[in-house]
Amino acid sequence: MKKENISDAVIRRLPRYYRHLNELCSRGVVRISSHSLGQEMSITASQIRQDFSCFGEFGQQGYGYNVEELKAEIGHILGVDNDHHLIMIGVGNLGHALLQNFPFSQCGFTVDAAFDVSPAVIGTAVNGVPICSMSELDTFIQSHSVDVVVLTIPQTVAQDTADHLISLGVKGFWNFTNIELSSQVPDVQFENIHFADSLLTLSYRIANR
Amino acid sequence: MKKENISDAVIRRLPRYYRHLNELCSRGVVRISSHSLGQEMSITASQIRQDFSCFGEFGQQGYGYNVEELKAEIGHILGVDNDHHLIMIGVGNLGHALLQNFPFSQCGFTVDAAFDVSPAVIGTAVNGVPICSMSELDTFIQSHSVDVVVLTIPQTVAQDTADHLISLGVKGFWNFTNIELSSQVPDVQFENIHFADSLLTLSYRIANR
Repeated sequence: MKKENISDAVIRRLPRYYRHLNELCSRGVVRISSHSLGQEMSITASQIRQDFSCFGEFGQQGYGYNVEELKAEIGHILGVDNDHHLIMIGVGNLGHALLQNFPFSQCGFTVDAAFDVSPAVIGTAVNGVPICSMSELDTFIQSHSVDVVVLTIPQTVAQDTADHLISLGVKGFWNFTNIELSSQVPDVQFENIHFADSLLTLSYRIANR
Repeated sequence: MKKENISDAVIRRLPRYYRHLNELCSRGVVRISSHSLGQEMSITASQIRQDFSCFGEFGQQGYGYNVEELKAEIGHILGVDNDHHLIMIGVGNLGHALLQNFPFSQCGFTVDAAFDVSPAVIGTAVNGVPICSMSELDTFIQSHSVDVVVLTIPQTVAQDTADHLISLGVKGFWNFTNIELSSQVPDVQFENIHFADSLLTLSYRIANR
Protein backbone atom coordinates (compact mmCIF):
# COMPACT_ATOMS: atom_id res chain seq x y z
CA MET A 1 0.00 0.00 0.00
CA LYS A 2 2.96 2.33 0.53
CA LYS A 3 3.43 4.69 -2.40
CA GLU A 4 6.24 7.05 -3.22
CA ASN A 5 5.93 10.73 -4.05
CA ILE A 6 2.43 11.32 -2.78
CA SER A 7 2.01 15.06 -2.48
CA ASP A 8 1.48 16.83 0.80
CA ALA A 9 -1.88 18.13 -0.48
CA VAL A 10 -3.15 14.57 -1.07
CA ILE A 11 -1.92 13.41 2.35
CA ARG A 12 -3.66 16.33 4.04
CA ARG A 13 -6.93 15.48 2.31
CA LEU A 14 -6.88 11.89 3.64
CA PRO A 15 -7.92 12.81 7.21
CA ARG A 16 -10.72 14.97 5.79
CA TYR A 17 -12.00 12.02 3.76
CA TYR A 18 -11.74 9.85 6.85
CA ARG A 19 -13.70 12.36 8.92
CA HIS A 20 -16.45 12.70 6.31
CA LEU A 21 -16.70 8.94 5.87
CA ASN A 22 -17.09 8.59 9.64
CA GLU A 23 -19.92 11.10 9.48
CA LEU A 24 -21.56 9.26 6.58
CA CYS A 25 -21.33 5.99 8.56
CA SER A 26 -22.96 7.56 11.58
CA ARG A 27 -25.73 8.90 9.31
CA GLY A 28 -26.28 5.35 8.07
CA VAL A 29 -25.12 6.01 4.48
CA VAL A 30 -24.06 2.70 2.90
CA ARG A 31 -22.63 3.84 -0.42
CA ILE A 32 -21.72 7.13 -2.07
CA SER A 33 -20.54 8.26 -5.49
CA SER A 34 -17.40 10.36 -5.92
CA HIS A 35 -19.76 13.06 -7.21
CA SER A 36 -21.86 13.16 -4.00
CA LEU A 37 -18.83 12.87 -1.73
CA GLY A 38 -17.27 15.73 -3.67
CA GLN A 39 -20.34 17.91 -3.25
CA GLU A 40 -20.38 17.34 0.51
CA MET A 41 -16.69 18.18 0.78
CA SER A 42 -16.39 20.91 -1.88
CA ILE A 43 -13.87 18.84 -3.83
CA THR A 44 -14.35 17.79 -7.46
CA ALA A 45 -15.25 14.16 -8.19
CA SER A 46 -12.19 13.82 -10.42
CA GLN A 47 -9.93 15.10 -7.63
CA ILE A 48 -11.36 12.45 -5.31
CA ARG A 49 -10.85 9.64 -7.84
CA GLN A 50 -7.32 10.88 -8.51
CA ASP A 51 -6.49 11.05 -4.78
CA PHE A 52 -7.76 7.54 -4.11
CA SER A 53 -5.97 6.16 -7.18
CA CYS A 54 -2.66 6.94 -5.41
CA PHE A 55 -3.47 4.11 -3.01
CA GLY A 56 -5.26 1.51 -5.13
CA GLU A 57 -8.70 0.81 -6.52
CA PHE A 58 -11.51 1.51 -4.05
CA GLY A 59 -14.71 2.27 -5.96
CA GLN A 60 -16.74 0.32 -8.44
CA GLN A 61 -17.89 1.83 -11.74
CA GLY A 62 -21.62 2.60 -11.54
CA TYR A 63 -21.85 1.68 -7.84
CA GLY A 64 -19.62 4.21 -6.15
CA TYR A 65 -17.87 3.57 -2.86
CA ASN A 66 -18.96 1.34 -0.03
CA VAL A 67 -18.73 3.85 2.82
CA GLU A 68 -17.76 1.40 5.56
CA GLU A 69 -15.07 -0.27 3.42
CA LEU A 70 -13.62 3.00 2.16
CA LYS A 71 -13.49 4.34 5.73
CA ALA A 72 -11.60 1.24 6.84
CA GLU A 73 -9.19 1.47 3.88
CA ILE A 74 -8.39 5.14 4.46
CA GLY A 75 -8.13 4.59 8.21
CA HIS A 76 -5.65 1.82 7.49
CA ILE A 77 -3.62 4.07 5.17
CA LEU A 78 -3.58 6.74 7.89
CA GLY A 79 -2.46 4.20 10.46
CA VAL A 80 -5.42 4.37 12.85
CA ASP A 81 -5.02 0.61 13.44
CA ASN A 82 -1.29 0.92 14.17
CA ASP A 83 -1.41 1.52 17.97
CA HIS A 84 1.13 4.31 18.10
CA HIS A 85 2.41 5.33 21.51
CA LEU A 86 2.46 8.93 22.56
CA ILE A 87 3.57 11.05 25.49
CA MET A 88 2.80 14.69 26.26
CA ILE A 89 5.22 17.29 27.56
CA GLY A 90 3.60 20.26 29.25
CA VAL A 91 0.33 19.82 31.11
CA GLY A 92 -0.94 23.39 31.30
CA ASN A 93 -4.38 24.44 30.13
CA LEU A 94 -3.89 23.23 26.57
CA GLY A 95 -2.37 19.94 27.69
CA HIS A 96 -5.27 19.39 30.08
CA ALA A 97 -7.80 20.21 27.35
CA LEU A 98 -6.23 17.68 24.97
CA LEU A 99 -5.93 14.92 27.59
CA GLN A 100 -9.53 15.43 28.67
CA ASN A 101 -11.21 15.87 25.29
CA PHE A 102 -9.11 14.73 22.37
CA PRO A 103 -10.00 11.23 21.09
CA PHE A 104 -6.43 9.90 20.87
CA SER A 105 -7.54 6.27 20.76
CA GLN A 106 -9.83 6.89 17.76
CA CYS A 107 -6.74 8.14 15.90
CA GLY A 108 -4.78 5.00 16.84
CA PHE A 109 -2.74 6.54 19.65
CA THR A 110 -2.27 5.41 23.24
CA VAL A 111 -1.22 8.16 25.64
CA ASP A 112 1.21 6.47 28.04
CA ALA A 113 2.26 9.42 30.20
CA ALA A 114 2.50 13.19 30.45
CA PHE A 115 5.33 15.23 31.92
CA ASP A 116 5.46 18.62 33.60
CA VAL A 117 7.67 20.71 35.89
CA SER A 118 4.87 21.84 38.21
CA PRO A 119 4.67 20.09 41.60
CA ALA A 120 0.94 20.92 41.58
CA VAL A 121 0.27 18.37 38.83
CA ILE A 122 3.12 15.83 39.21
CA GLY A 123 1.76 12.62 40.69
CA THR A 124 -1.81 13.31 39.60
CA ALA A 125 -3.59 11.83 36.59
CA VAL A 126 -5.73 13.45 33.90
CA ASN A 127 -8.28 11.21 32.23
CA GLY A 128 -6.27 8.19 33.37
CA VAL A 129 -2.92 9.51 32.10
CA PRO A 130 -0.28 9.79 34.84
CA ILE A 131 1.50 13.15 35.10
CA CYS A 132 5.19 12.57 35.82
CA SER A 133 8.09 14.84 36.70
CA MET A 134 10.32 16.04 33.87
CA SER A 135 13.19 14.43 35.77
CA GLU A 136 11.70 11.05 34.87
CA LEU A 137 11.47 11.82 31.15
CA ASP A 138 14.79 10.46 29.90
CA THR A 139 14.44 7.16 31.72
CA PHE A 140 10.88 6.80 30.45
CA ILE A 141 11.85 7.33 26.83
CA GLN A 142 14.79 4.94 27.11
CA SER A 143 12.57 2.20 28.47
CA HIS A 144 9.44 2.71 26.34
CA SER A 145 8.60 2.88 22.68
CA VAL A 146 7.54 6.48 22.04
CA ASP A 147 6.30 7.23 18.52
CA VAL A 148 5.09 10.78 19.06
CA VAL A 149 5.67 13.52 21.62
CA VAL A 150 2.99 16.20 21.98
CA LEU A 151 4.69 19.49 22.77
CA THR A 152 2.43 21.78 24.81
CA ILE A 153 5.26 23.71 26.45
CA PRO A 154 6.30 27.38 26.40
CA GLN A 155 7.88 28.66 23.18
CA THR A 156 11.13 29.57 24.92
CA VAL A 157 11.98 25.94 25.64
CA ALA A 158 10.46 24.37 22.53
CA GLN A 159 13.49 23.90 20.26
CA ASP A 160 15.81 22.84 23.11
CA THR A 161 13.29 20.29 24.32
CA ALA A 162 12.81 18.94 20.80
CA ASP A 163 16.59 18.68 20.26
CA HIS A 164 16.98 16.78 23.51
CA LEU A 165 14.16 14.38 22.65
CA ILE A 166 15.61 13.79 19.17
CA SER A 167 18.96 12.93 20.78
CA LEU A 168 17.06 10.28 22.74
CA GLY A 169 15.62 8.85 19.52
CA VAL A 170 12.19 10.51 19.29
CA LYS A 171 11.15 10.94 15.64
CA GLY A 172 7.60 12.32 15.74
CA PHE A 173 6.39 15.61 17.18
CA TRP A 174 2.90 17.06 17.41
CA ASN A 175 3.85 20.64 18.03
CA PHE A 176 1.43 23.13 19.61
CA THR A 177 4.08 25.71 20.58
CA ASN A 178 3.49 27.90 17.51
CA ILE A 179 7.28 27.84 16.92
CA GLU A 180 8.51 26.36 13.66
CA LEU A 181 10.73 23.52 14.90
CA SER A 182 13.43 21.95 12.77
CA SER A 183 16.10 19.29 12.92
CA GLN A 184 18.98 18.07 10.76
CA VAL A 185 18.33 14.51 11.91
CA PRO A 186 16.81 12.41 9.09
CA ASP A 187 13.29 11.07 9.38
CA VAL A 188 12.21 13.39 12.16
CA GLN A 189 8.64 14.56 11.52
CA PHE A 190 7.20 17.76 12.94
CA GLU A 191 3.47 18.34 12.62
CA ASN A 192 2.83 21.91 13.64
CA ILE A 193 -0.54 23.23 14.74
CA HIS A 194 -0.77 26.88 13.73
CA PHE A 195 -3.96 28.30 15.18
CA ALA A 196 -3.19 31.69 13.62
CA ASP A 197 -3.33 30.27 10.07
CA SER A 198 -6.88 29.22 10.77
CA LEU A 199 -8.00 32.53 12.31
CA LEU A 200 -6.38 34.51 9.49
CA THR A 201 -8.23 32.39 6.91
CA LEU A 202 -11.45 33.33 8.70
CA SER A 203 -10.35 36.96 8.81
CA TYR A 204 -9.87 36.91 5.02
CA ARG A 205 -13.28 35.34 4.47
CA ILE A 206 -15.23 37.76 6.64
CA ALA A 207 -13.42 40.68 4.96
CA ASN A 208 -14.15 39.34 1.44
CA ARG A 209 -17.61 37.78 1.58
CA MET B 1 -7.81 44.27 -3.93
CA LYS B 2 -10.84 41.98 -3.63
CA LYS B 3 -10.83 39.26 -6.26
CA GLU B 4 -13.47 36.74 -7.19
CA ASN B 5 -13.07 32.99 -7.41
CA ILE B 6 -9.86 32.66 -5.46
CA SER B 7 -9.56 29.01 -4.54
CA ASP B 8 -9.63 27.75 -0.98
CA ALA B 9 -6.13 26.33 -1.47
CA VAL B 10 -4.72 29.77 -2.35
CA ILE B 11 -6.51 31.41 0.58
CA ARG B 12 -5.13 28.79 2.96
CA ARG B 13 -1.58 29.42 1.74
CA LEU B 14 -1.81 33.14 2.48
CA PRO B 15 -1.44 32.78 6.27
CA ARG B 16 1.53 30.47 5.68
CA TYR B 17 3.21 33.10 3.51
CA TYR B 18 2.44 35.71 6.14
CA ARG B 19 3.98 33.56 8.87
CA HIS B 20 7.14 32.85 6.87
CA LEU B 21 7.52 36.52 5.92
CA ASN B 22 7.24 37.42 9.61
CA GLU B 23 10.03 34.95 10.32
CA LEU B 24 12.18 36.36 7.51
CA CYS B 25 11.65 39.88 8.90
CA SER B 26 12.70 38.79 12.36
CA ARG B 27 15.81 37.19 10.83
CA GLY B 28 16.61 40.52 9.19
CA VAL B 29 16.08 39.32 5.62
CA VAL B 30 15.35 42.33 3.40
CA ARG B 31 14.51 40.69 0.08
CA ILE B 32 13.85 37.21 -1.18
CA SER B 33 13.27 35.56 -4.56
CA SER B 34 10.23 33.38 -5.23
CA HIS B 35 12.74 30.55 -5.67
CA SER B 36 14.24 30.94 -2.16
CA LEU B 37 10.87 31.53 -0.52
CA GLY B 38 9.62 28.40 -2.26
CA GLN B 39 12.55 26.35 -0.99
CA GLU B 40 11.95 27.47 2.58
CA MET B 41 8.26 26.63 2.34
CA SER B 42 8.39 23.54 0.10
CA ILE B 43 6.27 25.27 -2.54
CA THR B 44 7.39 25.77 -6.15
CA ALA B 45 8.43 29.26 -7.23
CA SER B 46 5.83 29.23 -10.00
CA GLN B 47 3.08 28.36 -7.47
CA ILE B 48 4.14 31.33 -5.36
CA ARG B 49 4.12 33.72 -8.33
CA GLN B 50 0.73 32.36 -9.41
CA ASP B 51 -0.73 32.74 -5.89
CA PHE B 52 0.47 36.33 -5.55
CA SER B 53 -0.75 37.22 -9.04
CA CYS B 54 -4.32 36.66 -7.79
CA PHE B 55 -3.91 39.83 -5.72
CA GLY B 56 -1.74 42.11 -7.86
CA GLU B 57 1.91 42.63 -8.71
CA PHE B 58 4.22 42.33 -5.72
CA GLY B 59 7.68 41.34 -6.91
CA GLN B 60 10.16 42.92 -9.28
CA GLN B 61 11.84 40.95 -12.06
CA GLY B 62 15.45 40.28 -11.10
CA TYR B 63 15.07 41.73 -7.60
CA GLY B 64 12.55 39.45 -5.95
CA TYR B 65 10.26 40.54 -3.16
CA ASN B 66 10.88 43.19 -0.55
CA VAL B 67 10.10 41.11 2.57
CA GLU B 68 8.71 43.94 4.70
CA GLU B 69 6.47 45.24 1.90
CA LEU B 70 5.21 41.80 0.91
CA LYS B 71 4.43 40.99 4.55
CA ALA B 72 2.43 44.22 4.84
CA GLU B 73 0.56 43.51 1.57
CA ILE B 74 -0.38 39.96 2.55
CA GLY B 75 -1.27 41.06 6.08
CA HIS B 76 -3.55 43.68 4.53
CA ILE B 77 -5.19 41.08 2.25
CA LEU B 78 -5.73 38.85 5.29
CA GLY B 79 -7.23 41.73 7.22
CA VAL B 80 -4.74 41.93 10.09
CA ASP B 81 -5.18 45.74 10.04
CA ASN B 82 -8.98 45.50 10.16
CA ASP B 83 -9.54 45.48 13.96
CA HIS B 84 -12.10 42.70 14.05
CA HIS B 85 -13.95 42.19 17.31
CA LEU B 86 -14.26 38.78 18.87
CA ILE B 87 -15.86 37.11 21.84
CA MET B 88 -15.28 33.64 23.26
CA ILE B 89 -17.94 31.23 24.49
CA GLY B 90 -16.68 28.56 26.86
CA VAL B 91 -13.75 29.31 29.18
CA GLY B 92 -12.60 25.83 30.12
CA ASN B 93 -9.01 24.65 29.72
CA LEU B 94 -8.87 25.30 25.99
CA GLY B 95 -10.52 28.71 26.32
CA HIS B 96 -8.06 29.65 29.08
CA ALA B 97 -5.12 28.47 26.97
CA LEU B 98 -6.21 30.59 24.00
CA LEU B 99 -6.91 33.70 26.09
CA GLN B 100 -3.57 33.40 27.83
CA ASN B 101 -1.33 32.49 24.91
CA PHE B 102 -2.87 33.15 21.53
CA PRO B 103 -1.74 36.44 19.92
CA PHE B 104 -5.21 37.67 18.90
CA SER B 105 -4.04 41.25 18.42
CA GLN B 106 -1.28 40.23 15.99
CA CYS B 107 -4.03 38.69 13.85
CA GLY B 108 -6.08 41.89 13.95
CA PHE B 109 -8.58 40.77 16.58
CA THR B 110 -9.64 42.42 19.82
CA VAL B 111 -11.13 40.04 22.38
CA ASP B 112 -13.91 42.03 24.04
CA ALA B 113 -15.36 39.44 26.41
CA ALA B 114 -15.68 35.74 27.17
CA PHE B 115 -18.77 33.91 28.42
CA ASP B 116 -19.21 30.82 30.54
CA VAL B 117 -21.82 29.09 32.70
CA SER B 118 -19.48 28.33 35.61
CA PRO B 119 -19.85 30.57 38.70
CA ALA B 120 -16.18 29.79 39.44
CA VAL B 121 -15.00 31.91 36.49
CA ILE B 122 -17.83 34.45 35.99
CA GLY B 123 -16.70 37.87 37.20
CA THR B 124 -13.00 37.05 36.85
CA ALA B 125 -10.71 38.09 34.00
CA VAL B 126 -8.17 36.10 31.99
CA ASN B 127 -5.35 38.11 30.46
CA GLY B 128 -7.49 41.24 30.78
CA VAL B 129 -10.58 39.69 29.17
CA PRO B 130 -13.65 39.81 31.42
CA ILE B 131 -15.51 36.51 31.87
CA CYS B 132 -19.25 37.14 31.85
CA SER B 133 -22.28 35.00 32.54
CA MET B 134 -24.02 33.34 29.58
CA SER B 135 -27.16 35.19 30.71
CA GLU B 136 -25.47 38.44 29.58
CA LEU B 137 -24.61 37.10 26.11
CA ASP B 138 -27.67 38.23 24.12
CA THR B 139 -27.57 41.78 25.47
CA PHE B 140 -23.85 41.97 24.79
CA ILE B 141 -24.20 40.90 21.17
CA GLN B 142 -27.11 43.28 20.59
CA SER B 143 -25.10 46.22 21.90
CA HIS B 144 -21.65 45.43 20.43
CA SER B 145 -20.22 44.72 17.03
CA VAL B 146 -19.11 41.06 17.12
CA ASP B 147 -17.30 39.81 14.01
CA VAL B 148 -16.25 36.40 15.28
CA VAL B 149 -17.31 34.07 18.09
CA VAL B 150 -14.77 31.51 19.29
CA LEU B 151 -16.61 28.34 20.25
CA THR B 152 -14.78 26.41 22.97
CA ILE B 153 -17.89 24.71 24.37
CA PRO B 154 -18.95 21.06 24.68
CA GLN B 155 -19.98 19.31 21.45
CA THR B 156 -23.49 18.64 22.74
CA VAL B 157 -24.40 22.33 22.76
CA ALA B 158 -22.34 23.44 19.75
CA GLN B 159 -24.94 23.54 16.95
CA ASP B 160 -27.70 24.98 19.17
CA THR B 161 -25.37 27.71 20.41
CA ALA B 162 -24.26 28.52 16.85
CA ASP B 163 -27.90 28.66 15.64
CA HIS B 164 -28.83 31.01 18.47
CA LEU B 165 -25.84 33.27 17.75
CA ILE B 166 -26.68 33.32 14.03
CA SER B 167 -30.24 34.37 14.89
CA LEU B 168 -28.66 37.32 16.75
CA GLY B 169 -26.68 38.27 13.64
CA VAL B 170 -23.28 36.63 14.24
CA LYS B 171 -21.64 35.67 10.93
CA GLY B 172 -18.18 34.37 11.84
CA PHE B 173 -17.28 31.32 13.94
CA TRP B 174 -13.89 29.97 14.98
CA ASN B 175 -15.00 26.51 15.95
CA PHE B 176 -12.92 24.30 18.28
CA THR B 177 -15.73 21.88 19.15
CA ASN B 178 -14.67 19.27 16.59
CA ILE B 179 -18.29 19.19 15.36
CA GLU B 180 -18.91 20.16 11.74
CA LEU B 181 -21.29 23.12 12.15
CA SER B 182 -23.55 24.32 9.38
CA SER B 183 -26.18 26.94 8.67
CA GLN B 184 -28.62 27.79 5.90
CA VAL B 185 -28.15 31.50 6.59
CA PRO B 186 -26.13 33.18 3.79
CA ASP B 187 -22.67 34.58 4.47
CA VAL B 188 -22.11 32.71 7.73
CA GLN B 189 -18.50 31.51 7.88
CA PHE B 190 -17.38 28.56 9.99
CA GLU B 191 -13.66 28.00 10.40
CA ASN B 192 -13.25 24.62 12.04
CA ILE B 193 -10.14 23.51 13.89
CA HIS B 194 -9.78 19.75 13.47
CA PHE B 195 -6.90 18.60 15.65
CA ALA B 196 -7.43 15.02 14.50
CA ASP B 197 -6.67 15.90 10.86
CA SER B 198 -3.27 17.08 12.00
CA LEU B 199 -2.48 14.06 14.18
CA LEU B 200 -3.62 11.66 11.44
CA THR B 201 -1.33 13.39 8.93
CA LEU B 202 1.53 12.77 11.37
CA SER B 203 0.38 9.19 11.83
CA TYR B 204 0.55 8.66 8.05
CA ARG B 205 4.03 10.19 7.87
CA ILE B 206 5.55 8.13 10.66
CA ALA B 207 4.03 4.97 9.15
CA ASN B 208 5.36 5.79 5.65
CA ARG B 209 8.76 7.40 6.15
